[in-house]
Amino acid sequence: VTDPTFAVRPIGWIESPIRNRRSAPRQADEGAPPAVLVLAEGVGPAIDGLQVGDQIVVLTWLHVARRDVLTTRPRDHLRAELTGVFATRSPDRPNPIGLHDVRVTAIEGMRIHVSGLEAINGTPVLDIKPVLGPPGER
Amino acid sequence: VTDPTFAVRPIGWIESPIRNRRSAPRQADEGAPPAVLVLAEGVGPAIDGLQVGDQIVVLTWLHVARRDVLTTRPRDHLRAELTGVFATRSPDRPNPIGLHDVRVTAIEGMRIHVSGLEAINGTPVLDIKPVLGPPGER
Repeated sequence: VTDPTFAVRPIGWIESPIRNRRSAPRQADEGAPPAVLVLAEGVGPAIDGLQVGDQIVVLTWLHVARRDVLTTRPRDHLRAELTGVFATRSPDRPNPIGLHDVRVTAIEGMRIHVSGLEAINGTPVLDIKPVLGPPGER
Repeated sequence: VTDPTFAVRPIGWIESPIRNRRSAPRQADEGAPPAVLVLAEGVGPAIDGLQVGDQIVVLTWLHVARRDVLTTRPRDHLRAELTGVFATRSPDRPNPIGLHDVRVTAIEGMRIHVSGLEAINGTPVLDIKPVLGPPGER
């Protein structure tokens, strides 16, 4: 869209039974299966403190999305009005970064098991953030 | 961290009275001032449908953050235990992408005014997503 650009580097990848976009649910709470975040060895220290039961936001790079799409029909409803992608959750958008609210269900070394996540197998993971509680609990 | 890398391109920039990291609150609900998302001309159609009052998630590139940091002391408490950055909201992390939950307060052409946002002036904006309601309302 404009310069400058910044380079994002995967910190890991999604392991999932979802093999392609066609079979991916639109959102996690629409039937997404559990997944595993398989993290790169180099980021090991960055998961210290992450615990089973934690609510986290996983950021992914939706690598099969189209980046040249600015308007879409929400949820592919043919009769929906054309809507700007910034007013929708379409994966097709200039910077196709996915946000996934999930719960950590198990941690095995660099494999972090999480609850339902709608990204397809092999999707790069960019970041993991804890969901924040209210100010007094930070 | 690992190859491949992907190039993110700003869709706009943050206009804010916050001039440097030292004067930025840690989180939006810790005293952050209103801000303006100044969007690039090229993405105009992508904001069609965005409305005053909408709750949105703004994704930013925290351009002054350090990317070589894997552990930190949360909230700079000197006596806090060293914690992996993926278990904290520190801006210093391999891919310094900021998430900001804000409300749209006004739209003037390509200038989107939003409620409290803790990023500093000039921070690149990567994406805007609506906050989703429950499945039945999508």
